[in-house]
Amino acid sequence: MQAAVMRNATLVIDEVPDPVPGPGQVLVRTLACGICGSDLHTLAHGDQFVEMSEDGADALEPGMPAPEIMDLARDVVMGHEFSAEVLDIGENVGNCRPGDIVVSLPVALDSNGIHPLGYSNQYPGGYAERMVLTDLMTMRVPDGVDPRHAALTEPMAVGLHAVNVSGIAPGTAAVVLGCGPVGLAVIAALGLAGVEPIVAADPSPTRRALASTMGAHEAVDPRTEPALDAWRRIDGRRPLVVFEAVGVPGMIDDAMRAAPRGTQIVVVGVCMETDRIRPMRGVVKELRIQFAFAYDPVEFRTTLDRIADGRLDVAPLITGSVPITGVPQAFADLADPEAHAKILVEP
Amino acid sequence: MQAAVMRNATLVIDEVPDPVPGPGQVLVRTLACGICGSDLHTLAHGDQFVEMSEDGADALEPGMPAPEIMDLARDVVMGHEFSAEVLDIGENVGNCRPGDIVVSLPVALDSNGIHPLGYSNQYPGGYAERMVLTDLMTMRVPDGVDPRHAALTEPMAVGLHAVNVSGIAPGTAAVVLGCGPVGLAVIAALGLAGVEPIVAADPSPTRRALASTMGAHEAVDPRTEPALDAWRRIDGRRPLVVFEAVGVPGMIDDAMRAAPRGTQIVVVGVCMETDRIRPMRGVVKELRIQFAFAYDPVEFRTTLDRIADGRLDVAPLITGSVPITGVPQAFADLADPEAHAKILVEP
Repeated sequence: MQAAVMRNATLVIDEVPDPVPGPGQVLVRTLACGICGSDLHTLAHGDQFVEMSEDGADALEPGMPAPEIMDLARDVVMGHEFSAEVLDIGENVGNCRPGDIVVSLPVALDSNGIHPLGYSNQYPGGYAERMVLTDLMTMRVPDGVDPRHAALTEPMAVGLHAVNVSGIAPGTAAVVLGCGPVGLAVIAALGLAGVEPIVAADPSPTRRALASTMGAHEAVDPRTEPALDAWRRIDGRRPLVVFEAVGVPGMIDDAMRAAPRGTQIVVVGVCMETDRIRPMRGVVKELRIQFAFAYDPVEFRTTLDRIADGRLDVAPLITGSVPITGVPQAFADLADPEAHAKILVEP
Repeated sequence: MQAAVMRNATLVIDEVPDPVPGPGQVLVRTLACGICGSDLHTLAHGDQFVEMSEDGADALEPGMPAPEIMDLARDVVMGHEFSAEVLDIGENVGNCRPGDIVVSLPVALDSNGIHPLGYSNQYPGGYAERMVLTDLMTMRVPDGVDPRHAALTEPMAVGLHAVNVSGIAPGTAAVVLGCGPVGLAVIAALGLAGVEPIVAADPSPTRRALASTMGAHEAVDPRTEPALDAWRRIDGRRPLVVFEAVGVPGMIDDAMRAAPRGTQIVVVGVCMETDRIRPMRGVVKELRIQFAFAYDPVEFRTTLDRIADGRLDVAPLITGSVPITGVPQAFADLADPEAHAKILVEP
């Protein structure tokens, strides 16, 4: 089958072996797969991704198998934000039936352990024509829901999880630094949680407009008005949670410097580089830095339900669509925040 | 009166003007004043202290006066961990009476604002024969309590506050990195909170022995067995809070690397330098970094009560006593963790 393959830190369009479903697994046809910022970073700095995966694996409970850590010397087909149509089922499958449209937690289970879909040498992700999914990890997309919208379940669930981890509730204000897909997902989840005001910051006018569409009450250019200044202008009194959704070095320390006493800073931006902070900034203001990662199955399901019933309109986030052969160019195009938020690969 | 004065980044013994109590203030004779690690750091890197005070001041609520920030070009008499005897009272004093033995939150209030006692050009701290305290900030030391022990109320309250901020409860394990006075105060507060096991780590055998005395169930040399390895050896299963009480660059990232998923790292060590972290370490394990600073009046009062009624025995922490003229040598001696934990200045 055709796939966009990560090979020697570049993307090449090539034929790869068709995956075969084992027990408890299903073969699917990829309908739509979003390109994630983590994929861009992994293509450029795969070694950092592997190193951090190893750090995370060290920390698993005794007795749990460590997830597969991809070998960058071998082919990887990325893509973990997808919807798909079930083509065939393996033995002992009780959830999916052929013809179902499904999404899935991007994890494959087999007797060899746990495999992160899209960052695995053994399981191709959504930048390929077909995938093997694990039946228990799939969720059926309700009839009538656009599979292109359902493909955004995964990135939008990241935002819901960050909001849940923060414990934020109505009566607390929120500042969202960065309005890429992660920041926009946070904004949408904050809005559905009834948080007000939501102050968003991004240098890109296009992304600020998307922030407003997704529910931000104020969207500022941090080069002319820093986000915390904007919050002071329009509120400045309520308890505050800052969501760091940029993920480049310096953002955490900037937020620590600008935040008022007692602020919780939720780090949901994925910064793989070494970063610098001044711990005393945290100490004298008793800040809390809460890191957030991924989502749980309930959050994934909730996000799918919200997309399906229309509470969460993800259509504005989809700014482009490419076939598999267009993946390399799409990776390049995503560097321009004026042009794109989420590009879908539609094989 | 005689004082140990910070002048041009050195300590000199000199005569300074006697302080005069204003309305709501009292004149006291210093009985005992502990030397704090922050004082050592401030003498060596006063500019960092001032810079961080400015950061903190920025963040106060609108309408609150900013605390005084000391001018390093002028004299400062440090010392904020003290007990004292009331000699004389100003107008409108309703709390203290002459002859009372008191401790005090190290803050002076007057019509000019808020002054941090021991880091002020206007109010000499406990490295002087006499001080002016603010009546409302004082607490009477019960009869029969050794004033030298009462002087440890302030540093021990720092430990209680860090434990309170963490929200730790019985059923959760604790690792304490560093067994200087701050770490020992945390260990004592954890023990009184019923936390078990408490695993402490410090390279110094003397400090490890003190950690055990104050309530640690295990005290390890991190050069031969890292603290988190020791926790895995003796527990490894319960939810975990790590208290970082060393305060030198690298400690937070080390803790992030070693901690299991979901760990809360409470930073109570005062690191004034720039530090490096790998944010992805926090992200993949969803760590929480909670910074803790100082204490509130209830925690200060609780700590005094615990010292007074014997639940908290601070006698083992007092490893030396000097007159005012001995302060410069005591600062030098405290560099050796084998020799000292807390040195009291007794004018």
